[in-house]
Amino acid sequence: MPVTMKRLLGPDTLRALARGCAVLGAGGGGDTHYALLQALQASEDFGPAPLVDVDELPDDALIMPCGGIGAPTVSVEKIENGDEGERLREYLQFLTGRRVAALMAGEIGGGNGLLPATWAARMGLPLVDADGMGRAFPEVPQVTMQLAGISPSPAVVTDERGNLIVFRAISGPWMERLERAAAVEFGGAASSTEFSMTAAQARTATVRNSVSLAIRIGESTIGATGSPVAALIAELGAFRLVSGKISDVERRTVRGFVRGSVVIEGLGEDTGRLIRLELQNENLVALERGRLLASVPDLITVLDSETADAIATEMIRYGQRVTVIAFPCDPVWRTERGIAITGPRAFGYDLDFQPVEELAGATG
Amino acid sequence: MPVTMKRLLGPDTLRALARGCAVLGAGGGGDTHYALLQALQASEDFGPAPLVDVDELPDDALIMPCGGIGAPTVSVEKIENGDEGERLREYLQFLTGRRVAALMAGEIGGGNGLLPATWAARMGLPLVDADGMGRAFPEVPQVTMQLAGISPSPAVVTDERGNLIVFRAISGPWMERLERAAAVEFGGAASSTEFSMTAAQARTATVRNSVSLAIRIGESTIGATGSPVAALIAELGAFRLVSGKISDVERRTVRGFVRGSVVIEGLGEDTGRLIRLELQNENLVALERGRLLASVPDLITVLDSETADAIATEMIRYGQRVTVIAFPCDPVWRTERGIAITGPRAFGYDLDFQPVEELAGATG
Repeated sequence: MPVTMKRLLGPDTLRALARGCAVLGAGGGGDTHYALLQALQASEDFGPAPLVDVDELPDDALIMPCGGIGAPTVSVEKIENGDEGERLREYLQFLTGRRVAALMAGEIGGGNGLLPATWAARMGLPLVDADGMGRAFPEVPQVTMQLAGISPSPAVVTDERGNLIVFRAISGPWMERLERAAAVEFGGAASSTEFSMTAAQARTATVRNSVSLAIRIGESTIGATGSPVAALIAELGAFRLVSGKISDVERRTVRGFVRGSVVIEGLGEDTGRLIRLELQNENLVALERGRLLASVPDLITVLDSETADAIATEMIRYGQRVTVIAFPCDPVWRTERGIAITGPRAFGYDLDFQPVEELAGATG
Repeated sequence: MPVTMKRLLGPDTLRALARGCAVLGAGGGGDTHYALLQALQASEDFGPAPLVDVDELPDDALIMPCGGIGAPTVSVEKIENGDEGERLREYLQFLTGRRVAALMAGEIGGGNGLLPATWAARMGLPLVDADGMGRAFPEVPQVTMQLAGISPSPAVVTDERGNLIVFRAISGPWMERLERAAAVEFGGAASSTEFSMTAAQARTATVRNSVSLAIRIGESTIGATGSPVAALIAELGAFRLVSGKISDVERRTVRGFVRGSVVIEGLGEDTGRLIRLELQNENLVALERGRLLASVPDLITVLDSETADAIATEMIRYGQRVTVIAFPCDPVWRTERGIAITGPRAFGYDLDFQPVEELAGATG
């Protein structure tokens, strides 16, 4: 059955998508630089992948969420060989006895928002205009499909050497433990699919239209006539937390994650302010001398003050001039169950979640 | 097709098998105490499993090698729930599209020599009179099937909670890394199958008649009229390395293995001698003040001096009165390729393998 597509993911669209994914990554999801190069090459070699709405797919169409798992610090040096997506698809088809109809980003944030577009082009499959987070989160079960009660199994994980693992875990947290251990053994990063589902399930179990949103976010800065940062803040309805320079970075790659913290020293109107970001792949919390400015599941993104390029946690360097923004997450994460698995306490912070717009109001 | 069996694995046979497996474990393969209790219970509940020769099975019959993986120190406290074998079989059948015709011990040594008998009884399947080592070794690819070029994939690993993992590794060493990481994540021990093969392959790719050998070894000490240790040494053609008491034990559970060393202080005619065993799940080398007395792949086993019960590495305690024996491994391990994967250098020792009978002759 012919599927009506929303658009083709050609070079200009991919460039906008890359910028938007970086912003929605909240520091994580993997760097978008290599991911964009791979997507452009695949688009040129195999033709651009079509972007489709979940509503356009038949109810029983099998959707394969996919992306990379591991520490972004590793992923920028340990590059895929290109065959990973095809291997994941083939084995998922063998396990389910069904054909994969479309790919979907497990998380729209960072390079993981682009990788499925690359694989879709290579396979001649459509990419679904949706994802499992509306941003990036560090752990496997931090997806809307987990909230919707969809099984993470069977998950398939592979590396650039050709090793392949299938996981049938008894729960999302066990899937996280087991996949993470495998990613660590592979050297800190791997490719994976989990939470495969039908289009009928995806209609209510995903964050819809997030690929289109990322493209629109990217286009807002590319086409900006004035300050790209101001244009982006307007497009997102975001809050500016601070503008300044990176004065300290503490970052380590442990057990398949990037962990650490970043300090931003205010400049200009923010002179004298000191903001600290704590991170686990993504920026988790923003604190000003102990006071909470923003936290997961809301998004905290570090932008280059000149270009509005989002800077991933593994790319932050001393001296960079940055503007830190925060903006609301998808509403599904602000439910009681959503906060339970992605709020500050899920990451070990003894803090209640407060919406960024309330925190900003208190500041204002 | 009805298969002619060699014998039924009833209670008396299982008791002899347990004693023999402990001796062939060379300290490893897991403690046989719980494994025997499980085997006796399964035999009572489901009827004894038949022991069959590989020659009696049709060429294309699928044989499932299986057992436990991990640190024996963990296995004595983290007990199986009983369903693991059935889960492994079901998933191997799904993956291969074929029915499992018989089980086989991956290693005849220790509790891993008994576990497949338990599972066979529960499933109503025969147990093959063969194994992949003729003893116990710590690592996944240290089996005769690896030497014979049989693929370790697909391997299936499961735990007592119901988690299940399939590994398709590009090599035996990668299978070891990945399975070990999973076993560690499960708490230090798991159940697994790998190197599944046809009966036609098993005829040349296994150590034949090793279950019968283990039973005969066990019976030799049970029926002994004089010293059980002397009877066992005679049955095995073994060399007595020392008799004395355990004067030091250093043992730690790390990365899915038991590692450490044991010192035996000679008593009686051996007064004044000090023998040191180094271990990784199994006893790897026996040294007397730096001089090599025996090493892998030959078997080094610590016996209770009174009863001739073999004492597993995780059960060694200060003060035990023991006799340490060593005896030749299956000839396949003394080939160049066999020594390459199971000789002293495979475990990081800067020593050439020397057959125990030559080392004993030099001592004599």
